[in-house]
Amino acid sequence: MTRPLVLGLDIGGTSSRVLLADLDGRRIGSGTAPGGNPTAHEASKAFDAVEQALRGALAGTDPALVTAAVVGMAGVGRLADPTVRGQFEAMWHRVGLRCAYQAIPDAVVAFAAGTPAPDGSLLLAGTGAIAAEIRNHRLGRIADGHGWLLGDLGSGFWLGREAVRTALSHLDGWTTVSLLVPRLLGELLGGVPDPGRDAVIAVVNAVRRDSPVALARFAPLVCQTAADGDPVAQDIIERAVGHLLDAAGRVRDSTTPPDRPLVLAGSLLVVNTPVSVAVRAGAAQHWPDAEVTLASDGAAGAAWLAALSLPDPPPGARLHSWLVSSG
Amino acid sequence: MTRPLVLGLDIGGTSSRVLLADLDGRRIGSGTAPGGNPTAHEASKAFDAVEQALRGALAGTDPALVTAAVVGMAGVGRLADPTVRGQFEAMWHRVGLRCAYQAIPDAVVAFAAGTPAPDGSLLLAGTGAIAAEIRNHRLGRIADGHGWLLGDLGSGFWLGREAVRTALSHLDGWTTVSLLVPRLLGELLGGVPDPGRDAVIAVVNAVRRDSPVALARFAPLVCQTAADGDPVAQDIIERAVGHLLDAAGRVRDSTTPPDRPLVLAGSLLVVNTPVSVAVRAGAAQHWPDAEVTLASDGAAGAAWLAALSLPDPPPGARLHSWLVSSG
Repeated sequence: MTRPLVLGLDIGGTSSRVLLADLDGRRIGSGTAPGGNPTAHEASKAFDAVEQALRGALAGTDPALVTAAVVGMAGVGRLADPTVRGQFEAMWHRVGLRCAYQAIPDAVVAFAAGTPAPDGSLLLAGTGAIAAEIRNHRLGRIADGHGWLLGDLGSGFWLGREAVRTALSHLDGWTTVSLLVPRLLGELLGGVPDPGRDAVIAVVNAVRRDSPVALARFAPLVCQTAADGDPVAQDIIERAVGHLLDAAGRVRDSTTPPDRPLVLAGSLLVVNTPVSVAVRAGAAQHWPDAEVTLASDGAAGAAWLAALSLPDPPPGARLHSWLVSSG
Repeated sequence: MTRPLVLGLDIGGTSSRVLLADLDGRRIGSGTAPGGNPTAHEASKAFDAVEQALRGALAGTDPALVTAAVVGMAGVGRLADPTVRGQFEAMWHRVGLRCAYQAIPDAVVAFAAGTPAPDGSLLLAGTGAIAAEIRNHRLGRIADGHGWLLGDLGSGFWLGREAVRTALSHLDGWTTVSLLVPRLLGELLGGVPDPGRDAVIAVVNAVRRDSPVALARFAPLVCQTAADGDPVAQDIIERAVGHLLDAAGRVRDSTTPPDRPLVLAGSLLVVNTPVSVAVRAGAAQHWPDAEVTLASDGAAGAAWLAALSLPDPPPGARLHSWLVSSG
């Protein structure tokens, strides 16, 4: 007798995760690989990473047993390009998959990884930042998510950039008494130079050596320094939290039923950072009737959505708690 | 009898200008070429452009007659690299120049292109933005000038980015009633799409097709739309002016003698844009005793500084007015 299986994929810019599960919520296999997002990477290389993660999850299982799959992906619109879609489907068949798949925005998967509810709102802050209203597992209104050049206010990139700005202002002679400046300069330059234009230029050049989005690597340092009581780092965190709550407030306004859940996702919000603590405090104040939950593994959220898409889906909330919460 | 000549170079990221003049302020030759800045371009290619501008200015003149030269350059620190300096000097000799040259920051040249005074302050807003205190033709305190990724608040880049942000917010459904949004979308996408996430992604992708700093190309559109009375564009201009006056105020504080001149430079400030009008109004209010002047041709400012560097310099202010003001 065949046991129908479902497959969930969470394909990001820095990692690709796949979960294979059965309808009792058992995790049959999982795989991870580098980023497989065709917006961030060249498509054929991106899908090599997805293939690697899929093969990891399917190892020892007949791929023909998979009956439903959900692919959560940032920049899912890239699959509208026939060439890109063709490359994805060729890879899909190469690993032996025969079932159809639904490609959906990563924000919808992140929401599903935090709640079994079909409606609510999502606030995600990792390298980037976005807030979204979710209606029946689909995207409603969106705020931000525009990328580091045009937005992502309050994101990890934003925190890192503000930290470097503080250091530059200090080096220009507008002295900042803060733990943050020496720590940041130590990490960026390997030491703390005397203030002056040469030091400013050294910082600007050191930042230019990496891609702009790599500024997100300083977000943990800002969080740690704020946690150590540094008022300058705390001010940056406070402004980030202001931006994030503003984005959440845009998608969660007076027309939103007050008990709709709010799911927090992304590396800045799902672990105990000062950003997460302050966002949760702000959310409790603004939306006291909402359940605020933390998103779990996106691949589990995607697998759960795949199960829901079956003609005769299993009980949603129970499967959700098995699959997602036990991750 | 030989007539001593001086040479001024203003080497930017997008254009290189050279002026050859005599000590009576006569313009003997001039040359222009694409950007020759070794920070923005590969050094040997950058100096090919400088060579082209030099050859234009020296055409028909014996280069041995040049007795002094000043090279104004953004990122002048690059010449501290022995390889880069060697490439520059090889080019210098290739065109037949035998005199020494002084390499100085472009901000000092821009200041000299606006006033014969040795001390004062400069506010420059073009693609980027910087404010600097000038003391005896040298850089003193500096505010901003950190480049588009880390600063340049109120610059042409900044104006363009804010305009795109306004359009994105509109397309996300936070309707903006403004002339700016349809004009910007028309220029960026060739038409005005219906609001929605697909349109947002189209805008983000269209911006990504060019380098980030190319967002400065929308600055004239923001200025024009503000001049047409659009309150949204006017609000962007007002915030830009706030940033620029803030930078000027940082380098021009209570310790600055109130009659020190303020030179305005850069494409946003030397022509009659709404930014320029508002900056001048703000400057008149904050620093009523300062003469506010507009920078003229940077190459003329550099040639004037070259004349000043001679052992027996000609009368500075008179030569300045001949060379710079008659440009």
